[in-house]
Amino acid sequence: MIERDEVYRIKTLRRPGKLAEVLTAISKHNAQIGEIATISITPDYNIREIVVIALADEDVHGITESIRAVPGVEIVSDSVDRAFDAHRGGKLRIEPNVEVRTLQDMREIYTPGVARVCTAIQQDESLADTYTWRGKTIAIVTDGSRVLGLGNIGPKAALPVMEGKALFYSKFVGLNAVPLVLDTQDPDEIIETVLRIAPGFGGIHLEDIASPGVYRIEEVLENTLDVPVFHDDQHGTAVVLMGSVLSAARLLDRRIEDMTFGQVGLGAAGSAIAHLARQFPFRGVSAFDPSPTAAARLAGLGDGIAPLTTTSADDGLETIMATADIVVLTTGRANLLSPSLVRKDQVIMALTNPVPEIDRHAALEAGAAFAADGSVVNNVLAYPGIFRGALDARASRITELMKRSAAEALTDLAPAGEILPNPLDPHVHSVVAERVRRAAL
Amino acid sequence: MIERDEVYRIKTLRRPGKLAEVLTAISKHNAQIGEIATISITPDYNIREIVVIALADEDVHGITESIRAVPGVEIVSDSVDRAFDAHRGGKLRIEPNVEVRTLQDMREIYTPGVARVCTAIQQDESLADTYTWRGKTIAIVTDGSRVLGLGNIGPKAALPVMEGKALFYSKFVGLNAVPLVLDTQDPDEIIETVLRIAPGFGGIHLEDIASPGVYRIEEVLENTLDVPVFHDDQHGTAVVLMGSVLSAARLLDRRIEDMTFGQVGLGAAGSAIAHLARQFPFRGVSAFDPSPTAAARLAGLGDGIAPLTTTSADDGLETIMATADIVVLTTGRANLLSPSLVRKDQVIMALTNPVPEIDRHAALEAGAAFAADGSVVNNVLAYPGIFRGALDARASRITELMKRSAAEALTDLAPAGEILPNPLDPHVHSVVAERVRRAAL
Repeated sequence: MIERDEVYRIKTLRRPGKLAEVLTAISKHNAQIGEIATISITPDYNIREIVVIALADEDVHGITESIRAVPGVEIVSDSVDRAFDAHRGGKLRIEPNVEVRTLQDMREIYTPGVARVCTAIQQDESLADTYTWRGKTIAIVTDGSRVLGLGNIGPKAALPVMEGKALFYSKFVGLNAVPLVLDTQDPDEIIETVLRIAPGFGGIHLEDIASPGVYRIEEVLENTLDVPVFHDDQHGTAVVLMGSVLSAARLLDRRIEDMTFGQVGLGAAGSAIAHLARQFPFRGVSAFDPSPTAAARLAGLGDGIAPLTTTSADDGLETIMATADIVVLTTGRANLLSPSLVRKDQVIMALTNPVPEIDRHAALEAGAAFAADGSVVNNVLAYPGIFRGALDARASRITELMKRSAAEALTDLAPAGEILPNPLDPHVHSVVAERVRRAAL
Repeated sequence: MIERDEVYRIKTLRRPGKLAEVLTAISKHNAQIGEIATISITPDYNIREIVVIALADEDVHGITESIRAVPGVEIVSDSVDRAFDAHRGGKLRIEPNVEVRTLQDMREIYTPGVARVCTAIQQDESLADTYTWRGKTIAIVTDGSRVLGLGNIGPKAALPVMEGKALFYSKFVGLNAVPLVLDTQDPDEIIETVLRIAPGFGGIHLEDIASPGVYRIEEVLENTLDVPVFHDDQHGTAVVLMGSVLSAARLLDRRIEDMTFGQVGLGAAGSAIAHLARQFPFRGVSAFDPSPTAAARLAGLGDGIAPLTTTSADDGLETIMATADIVVLTTGRANLLSPSLVRKDQVIMALTNPVPEIDRHAALEAGAAFAADGSVVNNVLAYPGIFRGALDARASRITELMKRSAAEALTDLAPAGEILPNPLDPHVHSVVAERVRRAAL
């Protein structure tokens, strides 16, 4: 479900149990408590900011009323929108890497010194990766045609998402990422534009570009450029999903060599997942998509996949459910999967947002050994380390083996009892990068 | 003249006068001393790094030999190329503007919080300037077709220059500037590319793009985009040149209302200078270019200029020299101006690099009251403040009035007895920005 964070700044009389009363009042609604920050404590009252994670369809006004109804509690302000505060002025800045204090400094980084560096690069273009920021710099390219759960919101409105992605590159792996939001949604024009800006970048991260155009964009760029190209919505999702599948098998103490893998839905993420699954020693990988254009894409999946090209959508789903030990669903269709089709001890990953193909509790009740929805798949776990590893290896593309190594690293890094590591732990991204770098070499 | 910095690391016996002996040895060559850094002082010897600014055609080997010939002096290493050290890893990095320490921080800057910011921008695109980095971010666009004195070196080799320009934006006025080096030198494709990447940028800085293509690129972009577009090679040069002309008049204690201004050479910089000169109350502005395509461009200069469209190159030059009190030369032709044409008390700015139209000493000997060459015009004095002022005013273009204000600010900021201020003084750029901002409003 799509969530929103509401932040209430409340003033409570300083009496034991007041905070608990407020939380109890909130809990009557379809909402969870997020962070609670103490703003001030005085002899008479306390001021706190409480983040309430409400589902998008929840009546926030009702929550406000319930808080107000608690005796001795006052709402100082509701809907303090900290997201807007966090975004003010943008989330990125460009800083100098070198000191410029003297005229001599200026002569070295600018004219006349820079001319010698230019000439050296002109004679050997590979030096650009050493003597410019290119070797550490990614372009994050979008046309804003398919952003988060928001759809086609265009380039300017997509910019905050791209800045967020760029911020994680900087914070987690020390790469520079430049958001480029394009004023065209024509795949040929996107390809042309990326090819033209490419000389200044060591990698191209494609983000939130609608299918099917993005398939060709990625393919042409990958075959034309000599730097890594990565469509995060596909491959980042696939890597994190596979990491969680491997972890689930480990939690259940089962070997993937004994398990069959079934992919239902072959859109952007689904086809990448099916591709990547073939890199692992599952007992078999099968895939199915109810859409009429799926057949062509199924054929494109090549060897190692046993595609089920049935004509009836229901048949294909039922076949996968009847045969696969691990079922991943990326169909875009809410509540597609009836609990009656779930077999005992299956692993069910129903990734469609905001409403999954099957509620994870319903899947578990129907006998699944493990069930999860799209909220487990946080792409931030994958793309920073993958690109850092690729750039460190000076790899010209991101291979399936590199993605497999990233997925395995995530499983290895997951704390005991959990399926994925904490993305805020910078160690995680360093390890992913190192494993990807080694896979590239 | 094109210069190069050679850095000698030398070890001298610790005796009085040793450093002086070394400098004397260097002074026998066509070279100047730059910075002298003391690396270590021991009881027996000193180690220093001496920057020697040699003209490009100087035999550096000879300098090395002369230093070696000084008794008690040893060259530890010559040609320590500090420029390469300064460029290693690139001169820029992208940093987060916001802290991300907790899950709640992540929820605010990324999903789900970012979705509200995206939606707000979708509904009102002007909010992008507040809630993304767009309002403080410039694209520095080049095709590498005319870089410094190096010519057409292509996009990758041009990147160090663009990073240098970007660094000054960050250091002097706190703007983000992203170098975009394009893999096309076709003016239509450059226009198309800039229009496509434009949604993410608050301004477009065109740099080192060859004429005449750049004229149309600038014109089309300026008329199509709603953000400032600025071709630094033209307008940055014009602003700094006009600042130095105003300062020269002030040094000579003359009013520009009593002086006529003559522009010789109407290439990129020259036509911008002639345009900008019309914004000042000179007694008259005349312009001349010997090239056959100049007539059209002269006509384009419009009212306020008395274009001298002579057929003979010598006639035009002689007419300007005979009538103008201030003569600016940007012809690209070394030693074009015979000292016999210089009149008493003229101001002569001969800007062609590496060899000017007339040596400044020769011009002074011939009677000029003030003479300078291209080394006085450092564009770093203009573009950071101009763009900062334009963005602060949310100006949609950089007008002649804004450029005039920048030039006047530079004159006002020049220390007594000098014609331009020190670009390393950040106060200078703040004042230019503020004057430009006020001119924009």
